[in-house]
Amino acid sequence: MSLITPRTPPGTMELLPRHQVAFQRLLDTIRRGYERFGFLPVETPVFETVETLLTKSGGETEKQVYFVQSTGAIQQGNKPEMALRFDLTVPLARYVAEHERDLAFPFRRYQIQRVYRGERAQRGRFREFYQCDIDVIGKDSLSPQYDAEIPAVIHHVFTELNFGGFTINVNNRKVLLGLLDGLGVSEADARVLVLREIDKLDKIGRDKVRDSLIGLGMADTAADTILSLIDAKGSNADTLAALNALGIDNDTFRQGVAELTTVIDGLRAFQVPDDAVRINLAIARGLDYYTGTVYETFLNDHPGIGSVCSGGRYDNLASHYTKSKLPGVGISIGATRLFYQLMEAGLIKDGAPTAQVLVTQMDPSLSADYFRIASDLRAAGINTEIQLDGGKLAKQMKYADRTGIPVAVLMGSDEKARGTATLKHLIRGEQIEVPLEELATRAKALLEG
Amino acid sequence: MSLITPRTPPGTMELLPRHQVAFQRLLDTIRRGYERFGFLPVETPVFETVETLLTKSGGETEKQVYFVQSTGAIQQGNKPEMALRFDLTVPLARYVAEHERDLAFPFRRYQIQRVYRGERAQRGRFREFYQCDIDVIGKDSLSPQYDAEIPAVIHHVFTELNFGGFTINVNNRKVLLGLLDGLGVSEADARVLVLREIDKLDKIGRDKVRDSLIGLGMADTAADTILSLIDAKGSNADTLAALNALGIDNDTFRQGVAELTTVIDGLRAFQVPDDAVRINLAIARGLDYYTGTVYETFLNDHPGIGSVCSGGRYDNLASHYTKSKLPGVGISIGATRLFYQLMEAGLIKDGAPTAQVLVTQMDPSLSADYFRIASDLRAAGINTEIQLDGGKLAKQMKYADRTGIPVAVLMGSDEKARGTATLKHLIRGEQIEVPLEELATRAKALLEG
Repeated sequence: MSLITPRTPPGTMELLPRHQVAFQRLLDTIRRGYERFGFLPVETPVFETVETLLTKSGGETEKQVYFVQSTGAIQQGNKPEMALRFDLTVPLARYVAEHERDLAFPFRRYQIQRVYRGERAQRGRFREFYQCDIDVIGKDSLSPQYDAEIPAVIHHVFTELNFGGFTINVNNRKVLLGLLDGLGVSEADARVLVLREIDKLDKIGRDKVRDSLIGLGMADTAADTILSLIDAKGSNADTLAALNALGIDNDTFRQGVAELTTVIDGLRAFQVPDDAVRINLAIARGLDYYTGTVYETFLNDHPGIGSVCSGGRYDNLASHYTKSKLPGVGISIGATRLFYQLMEAGLIKDGAPTAQVLVTQMDPSLSADYFRIASDLRAAGINTEIQLDGGKLAKQMKYADRTGIPVAVLMGSDEKARGTATLKHLIRGEQIEVPLEELATRAKALLEG
Repeated sequence: MSLITPRTPPGTMELLPRHQVAFQRLLDTIRRGYERFGFLPVETPVFETVETLLTKSGGETEKQVYFVQSTGAIQQGNKPEMALRFDLTVPLARYVAEHERDLAFPFRRYQIQRVYRGERAQRGRFREFYQCDIDVIGKDSLSPQYDAEIPAVIHHVFTELNFGGFTINVNNRKVLLGLLDGLGVSEADARVLVLREIDKLDKIGRDKVRDSLIGLGMADTAADTILSLIDAKGSNADTLAALNALGIDNDTFRQGVAELTTVIDGLRAFQVPDDAVRINLAIARGLDYYTGTVYETFLNDHPGIGSVCSGGRYDNLASHYTKSKLPGVGISIGATRLFYQLMEAGLIKDGAPTAQVLVTQMDPSLSADYFRIASDLRAAGINTEIQLDGGKLAKQMKYADRTGIPVAVLMGSDEKARGTATLKHLIRGEQIEVPLEELATRAKALLEG
């Protein structure tokens, strides 16, 4: 029989077990953080009906969709009825609209699942990746104070993740739009062009952006005003003061500044340190979707990774599926990409193996004793593996070394006669002989020591 | 704009949040149990290349596969290159063959992921469902003692799941084949026919099976011998004694009985109660795949659900992908079906909401205080939600009631002046006013009380 070369499908992240442990810990930390804020879990099917998924009129999204068809459907030449979700937002909208009467609002849900995009395969680009989302969905209305709670969640989760310093960038789309309006750029298309130029600030620098803005017909003073605001290095209070001092008084601007103030004030009450959050008028992400507050989060020591947690406020979640008005605010952590980038940067260590203790088999005639020891350790809450294949002890120890299991139990006929066993810490080299009835307690102490 | 009716794709299990909490607890319990025995996590992509997935020559499997294609591939009329996994065994085989050099053997892996089958949609049949698998894979060989450890895992997990009594049925395919050989049925096709009849014992009864066996050309005495063994109600020791007393001495039979004895003896040493495990010579599942020990597990009070955890021993995991011989033993819990059936039987209660405490907003002017209280409770490890929309207190309490959050914090200007807040247990009706600095401690006590 000819062999098939085993290969992981391109564009996916498949991990060796110890890395999987580390990744699982990442997901668990995020989940625990989301639950700490009272978000409720939701899981949706990996596929949605094509009708549900592709409500938006064509464009980039549709090109990246993976369609799903059974053998029968392909044979009959049918059009695909299902497609893999490309984000968790469309499934959330469908879920909330479908189960609206069974949910209590504001509905706080978290969802940690994989999504699929038909990206061109290249290093660091994934066709399958985890998103870890939270959203708070209101019915008819949702207080802007929720916009202040979201960065408190980000702060909690990234503190727990312990990947070093991070900065949560906050902006409000209404501030930008109101500002442009106040500076004489009130036509929608012109705004989009201006915002696109502003987005380039970090890449091409202030002078070039200024030239572009003036090229788009903006007055010199207007361009300077907006660039000074965006480039400001002062505190959040300074930025808010500068905004208030502009004397712009259109409704959009005033509402935006008020919301931004609510977020900054709220975060202080939520005990989030001032320097963890920065008003950044340059971030203007997802302008077709977000309508108020927007968030982007950067790791201070790894700006190249880009935003590791983004999101914002939207006016209406599920207008394609229900007449109810469902405003919301949410964020997403792209866990696969984050993990991959941190692994590339050498910041991810192998996770500890699941087994804490390995019961070795020195003497096959004592196997029932080894079984009993393993069973006792497990009953005491210690994750325990038992070597059942036996063979030379050196080989068994090599296995323990390779898998990283920190503690081994050894018992030969001498120990058996004395009613003892030997505990060996394989990393620290410590070794103690202990009475069998104390084995679990002493193993725990050794693991913690 | 015309609305699209939001609907969950047919054949999938989508849960409301509180049920999702209960389901998540089920998966967590299984995972914790698997880790207790030192199994390492693995996740594989949801799709595999068609070449990897469809190595077996056609048949039922291929008909049930879901193919995956990007928009571009469909437009170009290409044949699908990817398909959704239909179990976790094929991905495991591919994984072990691909990463063989990076794994330590025996390789103990668990995998808890969804699989996909193009079933005809009908109640209780799922196109997408979780499998929770463990396997121990040896290189070249794997001690039959691992066959004894697997039911110890099943026993641990189902005890922790707490769904009532259960029985792990154990058989060994070699015993059956050796027995048939000893009774004169040695031709492979005839064996398959006989085993198929034996499998019907529970459904059609002993007399009808006897008639069928004789109709297949088996001698009356042979039919009676096999039926007596299979129908035996004695202890496992009785069954082993009866097998040994048959005087059959072909290699297959003797090896099978020895392995079965190893399993039963081992389980005793693993401290699994005798009555949790039953040798059942009638179970003959997956005859094309398993080669030795097989397992099926039934809930004593819900036999109609069928086996909730099945598996067995196989000779060679990955012969399609590698020349290495990789014998293994494993089991699978079909978590989606199990949960669904228990829910239908009324045995699944809603899970507790993730939030333990709801901080209400009695007086909007105190919102910064509420933020600080929520933040303090969270820092103390209490999952806390805060009502930010405000509104009438009755409405906020109704929300707490609907979501099932057990404890509410209330603070008006009087309490604020006294430096206190009121903790109210919404289920027990208890209410206490406590100093703010004791709030977290007292809330914990109230939650535990």
